[in-house]
Amino acid sequence: ANWLMLQGTEPADNAPRAKVWGFIQPMYSKDFSDAFAGKYVPPKLIGPSLDSQSSFNILRARIGVRGTGFPLDSHINYFLLTEFGNNAITNGGKYGSYKPYLTDASITLNYIKGARVRLGLFKYPGAEEGLQGIAAFPYIGYTSVTNQMLLERFPTNGETNIAPQTVPNADMNAFSAPVGAFRDVGAQVFDAFDVGNWEHTYAVMLGNGHGVQMSDNNSSKDLYLYWSSAYLFDKSAKGPFRPSLKMFTWYQKGKRTDAYDNTKEQDRKRYGVGVSYLKKPFRVSAEYMWGQGMIFQGQQNPQRMFNNNKAAGGYIEGGYFIPNTKFELDLRYDTYKRNKGIMKGPTPEAKFNTWTAGVNYHFNKKTRFTLDYSIRKYSSVFTPVNNQLKDVKGLLALQVTAVF
Amino acid sequence: ANWLMLQGTEPADNAPRAKVWGFIQPMYSKDFSDAFAGKYVPPKLIGPSLDSQSSFNILRARIGVRGTGFPLDSHINYFLLTEFGNNAITNGGKYGSYKPYLTDASITLNYIKGARVRLGLFKYPGAEEGLQGIAAFPYIGYTSVTNQMLLERFPTNGETNIAPQTVPNADMNAFSAPVGAFRDVGAQVFDAFDVGNWEHTYAVMLGNGHGVQMSDNNSSKDLYLYWSSAYLFDKSAKGPFRPSLKMFTWYQKGKRTDAYDNTKEQDRKRYGVGVSYLKKPFRVSAEYMWGQGMIFQGQQNPQRMFNNNKAAGGYIEGGYFIPNTKFELDLRYDTYKRNKGIMKGPTPEAKFNTWTAGVNYHFNKKTRFTLDYSIRKYSSVFTPVNNQLKDVKGLLALQVTAVF
Amino acid sequence: ANWLMLQGTEPADNAPRAKVWGFIQPMYSKDFSDAFAGKYVPPKLIGPSLDSQSSFNILRARIGVRGTGFPLDSHINYFLLTEFGNNAITNGGKYGSYKPYLTDASITLNYIKGARVRLGLFKYPGAEEGLQGIAAFPYIGYTSVTNQMLLERFPTNGETNIAPQTVPNADMNAFSAPVGAFRDVGAQVFDAFDVGNWEHTYAVMLGNGHGVQMSDNNSSKDLYLYWSSAYLFDKSAKGPFRPSLKMFTWYQKGKRTDAYDNTKEQDRKRYGVGVSYLKKPFRVSAEYMWGQGMIFQGQQNPQRMFNNNKAAGGYIEGGYFIPNTKFELDLRYDTYKRNKGIMKGPTPEAKFNTWTAGVNYHFNKKTRFTLDYSIRKYSSVFTPVNNQLKDVKGLLALQVTAVF
Repeated sequence: ANWLMLQGTEPADNAPRAKVWGFIQPMYSKDFSDAFAGKYVPPKLIGPSLDSQSSFNILRARIGVRGTGFPLDSHINYFLLTEFGNNAITNGGKYGSYKPYLTDASITLNYIKGARVRLGLFKYPGAEEGLQGIAAFPYIGYTSVTNQMLLERFPTNGETNIAPQTVPNADMNAFSAPVGAFRDVGAQVFDAFDVGNWEHTYAVMLGNGHGVQMSDNNSSKDLYLYWSSAYLFDKSAKGPFRPSLKMFTWYQKGKRTDAYDNTKEQDRKRYGVGVSYLKKPFRVSAEYMWGQGMIFQGQQNPQRMFNNNKAAGGYIEGGYFIPNTKFELDLRYDTYKRNKGIMKGPTPEAKFNTWTAGVNYHFNKKTRFTLDYSIRKYSSVFTPVNNQLKDVKGLLALQVTAVF
Repeated sequence: ANWLMLQGTEPADNAPRAKVWGFIQPMYSKDFSDAFAGKYVPPKLIGPSLDSQSSFNILRARIGVRGTGFPLDSHINYFLLTEFGNNAITNGGKYGSYKPYLTDASITLNYIKGARVRLGLFKYPGAEEGLQGIAAFPYIGYTSVTNQMLLERFPTNGETNIAPQTVPNADMNAFSAPVGAFRDVGAQVFDAFDVGNWEHTYAVMLGNGHGVQMSDNNSSKDLYLYWSSAYLFDKSAKGPFRPSLKMFTWYQKGKRTDAYDNTKEQDRKRYGVGVSYLKKPFRVSAEYMWGQGMIFQGQQNPQRMFNNNKAAGGYIEGGYFIPNTKFELDLRYDTYKRNKGIMKGPTPEAKFNTWTAGVNYHFNKKTRFTLDYSIRKYSSVFTPVNNQLKDVKGLLALQVTAVF
Repeated sequence: ANWLMLQGTEPADNAPRAKVWGFIQPMYSKDFSDAFAGKYVPPKLIGPSLDSQSSFNILRARIGVRGTGFPLDSHINYFLLTEFGNNAITNGGKYGSYKPYLTDASITLNYIKGARVRLGLFKYPGAEEGLQGIAAFPYIGYTSVTNQMLLERFPTNGETNIAPQTVPNADMNAFSAPVGAFRDVGAQVFDAFDVGNWEHTYAVMLGNGHGVQMSDNNSSKDLYLYWSSAYLFDKSAKGPFRPSLKMFTWYQKGKRTDAYDNTKEQDRKRYGVGVSYLKKPFRVSAEYMWGQGMIFQGQQNPQRMFNNNKAAGGYIEGGYFIPNTKFELDLRYDTYKRNKGIMKGPTPEAKFNTWTAGVNYHFNKKTRFTLDYSIRKYSSVFTPVNNQLKDVKGLLALQVTAVF
């Protein structure tokens, strides 16, 4: 699927003035991890508030409007989406931080051939897992590399680190600001070109580098670059399930002002490369990503975010749509190494390997049930950190997704 | 009216993909209570912020979407509703705690005959006053037993009790988290069965027991049971004003983690029985309810919530729709006794008796004006508390309700 | 344009049950002011968080519903609008204070000839710059007199003054509550009368005097009075761009409870007179306003709001729609003098003069691009304040407005 085009533009011929749409994702999670020395850390607890090992939740409840505003003019379209669910966008995690949030508010100007311009708040051109529409995301949780390295956290002055807690019911999340949500506010130039059965897509964007928090807190801006080339098995097909083989690469660079000392800034860099194949009944995708600076050290450690550490990780996953049934089977392996080469101290090297097996049952084109079970092998080169990580165990998640 | 069916399902034949709907309730309140020894307590002030004896307000401003998502499949429907008004859901009461909130986000699967499954955030099966649609609720304020015993409050660590204040303009509300709003996040199995002119309805639900705060803060879940049997005077009638005689009973049980010491948990139990008769021009309804544990001690006393006290109360009310006019006359008596049998100390026995006389003027099927005047007789067996409660006097409220 | 009628009523013949509408305003701002002695103050920084000299932003992202609810009855209409953008309504400015907000929730009863009644939260009848629809406002920023004297700020107990900061990246905004947004909750009686080619409009309103914070924090209510007389060049024309010459005057009076000592109240008074001419290709408008009490002293000084100082200011501006093009040229001069006659101390007299040159490019009837550049000459009679104000320089702003 070409997410830049699907999310940033409308069909030229028949877009509505204002289509109300959205989706709901009720879910249930259970974490089977054990305490170490009677204490718990965030990966053993259910987010965003990290104060229980089992919980129902409304992971997402999105309501939006999209269309062309003035239907006589197909040169301009807009996309507006709000989030009322309970996740790391609406709820930094610290008690009392829930509030609905704007996730997307963009206007696209389609005047210049080969250079569409998208302005506002929207998903920046980047890694497939963040860029794809949630309604088409076959798993419930993100991979470790996406969750930790790409889903940016923003500490606020006054937030302090939290030690491991003796009961799972204690709030272990120190953050109150929303995560970046793979989004930024800025201006993007992009377009897609057909060359035979190939579709090439590029995007260049400048943004605040401040996630969904709409205004910037420094004057430097983030730069985003993106390229993809997709071989289309069926040129007439459209939408998120269009059969294709897509290769892509992306790059992102910016600066972050230190929340605890606003005279300092820290560089942040991320880049990656990936491939995705979809032709029913099969789907296979894989991606590898690298990062330096602003490496996340867990929801309990906001004061350790302003580092210049290195990290890298990736995943390979596949799906099988059992013919003549509503079932889809999914399997994913992901790996992430953070703080590469640091052997001790407050931010030691740690490794996160996860196998996730899943089933999707598609009631209809707009509604599906998902069951995921993850086996997690976490470790660190530094014993005090490793003691907690080694007891991170299985995670069960059930979810229904209904799109309207 | 059968609220479980009206709110949880859609007509099988003609539900829309996405119907935008909602309602607005502007209002004005004036409290005629006197200060005692120059000081004020919460029942003498206007909520949610409890810092004035007269105020205009937007009690509710709800916008939602409901339908079947994929109109070709009537097996699945959804219900989404957001609240932007200023009440105890959006505004715990403490200054600065207002924020819009999600009140409902559910998906209903209608596949198994006799066992519909509703998932997500929605009204739990319980007492009539909480379960009924607000647009059909003939009064402006809740009864004391509903407001105090059923409308659950959630203290947050750090919130402290507030002493009586010398001016009405001082903020007397210590809570910042939203009330439970008669809702929970979880899974409900339910259905309705017709036997001649009788309609029997059951519901069993498991939920977080954490109100509209979507994720749980402990691993124990709340259990809800519900049964109703209604005699239908007109089997072809539908909607909230269907003529019927309905008897119902409900039960709810769970645990709450102590906000001030998260190693402790407190049991919470509620149950009740009631009857409602509606056949224009008359309406009569009555209900009695019992509770133990987590008995609310006023908006100024969050630190006294984690108790194992007992309480009980009920109401009887009726309405008369004056034939050939747009007027409806209403009268309600309600009573509530909290902390039964406790003669002194921080949570002494107190009694709350209220007569409410009201008028509804129905401009049209979607819009009405309501005037309510309440006479309140409050008392306590413990003199320091009784001194304040005995001066609680009349309360006037005016409201317009517009549904769209 | 007659904003009271356009916003408060619907056409009697063909209003929808529920029209979903709104607008999006992505923007970019750059402030060219210099530090004084290495330090910054709010007018040199980009709002609402005042922690940068350049930023992309979503200035407004509004979603609403309006119509008649029950389409068979044109006597009643409603207007509901929510704000998800990042401005002084949703974000007082202090870190972490962003939350979506309800800006309008009103019901209009059109039963009494000559006396329509509007109830709820809506724009009070007042100055043209605040009352007009944002979609028709030709500039990006408000004039100084409107921003400082009319756009009311509400300090909260605990908020303290902030000294000038050594880096632009430090948060300079001490307020967390939403601004008044030219709105109030209350009841308004109003109507418009045609006499030949003249249209006379009056409004009388009582409100909380607490802006968009829906409940009042004291028992005194604000009084609003409004009168306008417009000569219509084309009686059949409708909407915000109806050709007319309009003269208007307004008055507003109320009391504010001191946030830092809630036993005290401060009077607040505002009044003004203005004229607006619109007949394409020309537009000219001018207004002058006076105020006493609650004179705003900057986002860094919440503790200085409860004063009885005097202020006054106004603007004259014009627009030229270049015939046969999509371009509109705009020029505005505005002036504001606050704390008149106070020669030193914490709230000394200060003067704010601004020239703003702008261009609007109208892509279509619903979408336009705006470029504004402002030259600001600020000064104070008191040297310590003047030192900072004299270095306030140019401000560049770019914006796209898309209405749907």
